[in-house]
Amino acid sequence: MRNILIVGSGKSSSYLVKYLLDKSESDDLFITIGDINTTNAEKLIQNHKRAKAVVLDVFDEESRSSAIEKADIVISMLPARFHMEVAKDCLRFSKHLVTASYVSEEMKALDQQVREKGLVFMNEIGVDPGIDHMSAMQVIDRIRSMGGKIILFESFTGGLVAPESDNNLWNYKFTWNPRNVVVAGQGGAAKFLQEGTYKYVPYHRLFRRTEFLDVEGYGRFEAYANRDSLKYQYEYGLDAVKTLYRGTIRRVGFSRAWNLFVQLGMTDDGYVLEHSENMSYRDFVNSFLPYSPTDSVELKFRHQLNIDQDDIIWDKFEELDIFSSKKKVGLKDATPAQVLQKILMDSWTLTAEDKDMIVMYHIFGYELDGKKHQIDSTMVTLGEDQTYTAMAKTVGLPVAMAALDILKGKIKTPGVQIPITKEIYEPILKELSESGIKFIEKDVQYFGYNPLNI
Amino acid sequence: MRNILIVGSGKSSSYLVKYLLDKSESDDLFITIGDINTTNAEKLIQNHKRAKAVVLDVFDEESRSSAIEKADIVISMLPARFHMEVAKDCLRFSKHLVTASYVSEEMKALDQQVREKGLVFMNEIGVDPGIDHMSAMQVIDRIRSMGGKIILFESFTGGLVAPESDNNLWNYKFTWNPRNVVVAGQGGAAKFLQEGTYKYVPYHRLFRRTEFLDVEGYGRFEAYANRDSLKYQYEYGLDAVKTLYRGTIRRVGFSRAWNLFVQLGMTDDGYVLEHSENMSYRDFVNSFLPYSPTDSVELKFRHQLNIDQDDIIWDKFEELDIFSSKKKVGLKDATPAQVLQKILMDSWTLTAEDKDMIVMYHIFGYELDGKKHQIDSTMVTLGEDQTYTAMAKTVGLPVAMAALDILKGKIKTPGVQIPITKEIYEPILKELSESGIKFIEKDVQYFGYNPLNI
Repeated sequence: MRNILIVGSGKSSSYLVKYLLDKSESDDLFITIGDINTTNAEKLIQNHKRAKAVVLDVFDEESRSSAIEKADIVISMLPARFHMEVAKDCLRFSKHLVTASYVSEEMKALDQQVREKGLVFMNEIGVDPGIDHMSAMQVIDRIRSMGGKIILFESFTGGLVAPESDNNLWNYKFTWNPRNVVVAGQGGAAKFLQEGTYKYVPYHRLFRRTEFLDVEGYGRFEAYANRDSLKYQYEYGLDAVKTLYRGTIRRVGFSRAWNLFVQLGMTDDGYVLEHSENMSYRDFVNSFLPYSPTDSVELKFRHQLNIDQDDIIWDKFEELDIFSSKKKVGLKDATPAQVLQKILMDSWTLTAEDKDMIVMYHIFGYELDGKKHQIDSTMVTLGEDQTYTAMAKTVGLPVAMAALDILKGKIKTPGVQIPITKEIYEPILKELSESGIKFIEKDVQYFGYNPLNI
Repeated sequence: MRNILIVGSGKSSSYLVKYLLDKSESDDLFITIGDINTTNAEKLIQNHKRAKAVVLDVFDEESRSSAIEKADIVISMLPARFHMEVAKDCLRFSKHLVTASYVSEEMKALDQQVREKGLVFMNEIGVDPGIDHMSAMQVIDRIRSMGGKIILFESFTGGLVAPESDNNLWNYKFTWNPRNVVVAGQGGAAKFLQEGTYKYVPYHRLFRRTEFLDVEGYGRFEAYANRDSLKYQYEYGLDAVKTLYRGTIRRVGFSRAWNLFVQLGMTDDGYVLEHSENMSYRDFVNSFLPYSPTDSVELKFRHQLNIDQDDIIWDKFEELDIFSSKKKVGLKDATPAQVLQKILMDSWTLTAEDKDMIVMYHIFGYELDGKKHQIDSTMVTLGEDQTYTAMAKTVGLPVAMAALDILKGKIKTPGVQIPITKEIYEPILKELSESGIKFIEKDVQYFGYNPLNI
């Protein structure tokens, strides 16, 4: 029997657990889910005889190491900052490890030891990062095998609300950690490459430098740049690339409105507002606007942000009820970002019936036989309900598949790694496609940023 | 003989040394100036028989502690981050200490020990902080002694170029550390109080929330908010104050133009530009603008920043020659802020003939006998040349005077402190006034932010 230990059983574990339970008989698996609180784990297991939930505090060495020692492979679904506790024990007891998180410097530093023990520490194998790596490298490798040279690569992902549940003016709801949405883009300028020129966008301009994307059957989206697109140049081996851009997808109009929060300073998570507990939503907004004995908060908001009286952006803010003097913040020593999150959660929390959606869009530009070509590749996944979400599916399935492939020896190259080699992506993308996570590719006319080649 | 040790002999030491040398006979002083490099110290001393320059590396314990041990009082003119090395030795050898820098948390933590030894550790006794504290507290204490209640306090300071040397379109030159000017306002939102409402301004809005100030004989200035104005509420004992605002003074129009650098992200000091060494000034500007195969950097700059073709702001940027494709950055691994500093130093470096200017402006609003009153208090100091600058005068003289007053026992309350008590400010402000650093006070109609009392 192969023992799989899953550490952490949060929102993104539903499909992961279901997939492994479905394979537990045929592949002779036993799944142990460790969490501080086992309620959700027990709900996911539903008394399955090949699984159990155990109390596991990742900072309690005793319970952590004894659980890891018993496993053949460990899947860490904890927040990224907690992976290292698990990783060190995996190394100590010679166990493989799978995470959906970015490889940290600390994790990378284990590479040599992991190789020496012949272990696989697979990271960035969720949706973004994860499915994006695999689906991009599959096309990139194919273009290369034909003798083509990649000159442009753009990649966009968004976690959104499904069209049938898309019923507010922002065309957005929180389908993932709301805090990450509120502070998205902070912590340094975005960097990317356009036609050979390095471009830098500070946070306060990020939401005004968007691009449009059309997805057949789903209409138009927009995207703003993710942090550092340049690191993918090295990882994907895109030496000759002239354009490299990674972005986050939203529905059209979201970024222009979100920018107003950024402009006012409402997304700042770096200081605490005086007397935040007793503030009304209106007080909160007013604290970012100049004092006036006569003018209303509404007029000051319009004036500071240049909102014409007939601009439809206005309705988005009214919908959030941010000018209410009755609704109270009720959070002690809160940062602006925390208050904004609270206000947005009033309006953007998914209801029991709501479904989510993951959208991914890659653009590949390449030269072959002296001509320029372009492939657009898109993937849309819809959630089924509030447990079996599109987010949980696209994060959990590749994690589960990778874990099984490592156990079966299909993935065997040792080291701390990300899924960018054929050995990894071919079987997983095929299986994902069978589970409905499919990319639609189109050959289109090469466009780039200099279509007339001036 | 009283021994004074001055550690550091940079730009702001000229008046400090001159003042002490002028008093050295009458007050029986001997002045030792310690610096890693004694060139400037020797220039300031000019073989005066009551002074000498010694090599002193603040991180070399031997030379530092032996110099401090011999002194009766130590003046640290080092950058603020180096004061603690000096402060610890002053405590060890029971010596008084004077600095012009903000009290750090580490410095504050010494208070108890400093008191126990009966020592005076005087900080924030330069111009800003320093003269601002003293001149403000003098008026505040006077209003209080009349039975008045302070309801508004605003305080503004600027280091500028003197009118006779004011010959560029920005009406600004670097009269102090250029780096501090480029990154000014960064590191968190500005906080202040207006008519009882707490206000927060993020960095990227700071230069668009200015106030105007008129100084008789010098025309109109503008000011943008300094970091945290609120901390002065406690230090000045302004419990009932409704408006509290500290700001930095510039000539009108500076902030609106500077804001464009901020908007583009050119003041960011947090990351390194790719291939900065080989960039032209034009390349630098272009890296913050979207790619276009056809449009010029100039047009993209105008379009991104909404600059009309007849807006005079444009001439300010042309004057800096930032669109030059010939001028090279020539700095390896430079941050945007470092490149911007280099470009600005081409245009804003003082020439040998240039003079500088310090402008200070306080506004006091108070209630007395049921009526509201206002006092405006202004101070302008002009530099004499490039050694005897207004900055060196306004920083160095109060430091020197405080040191002498401590030596003479006029200032005797022990502890880590700032100059906000009568014991300190009365004699020093009187002496400063005799040296030409004078405040002009005017009783004006109370204005505040709610003149109609609505």
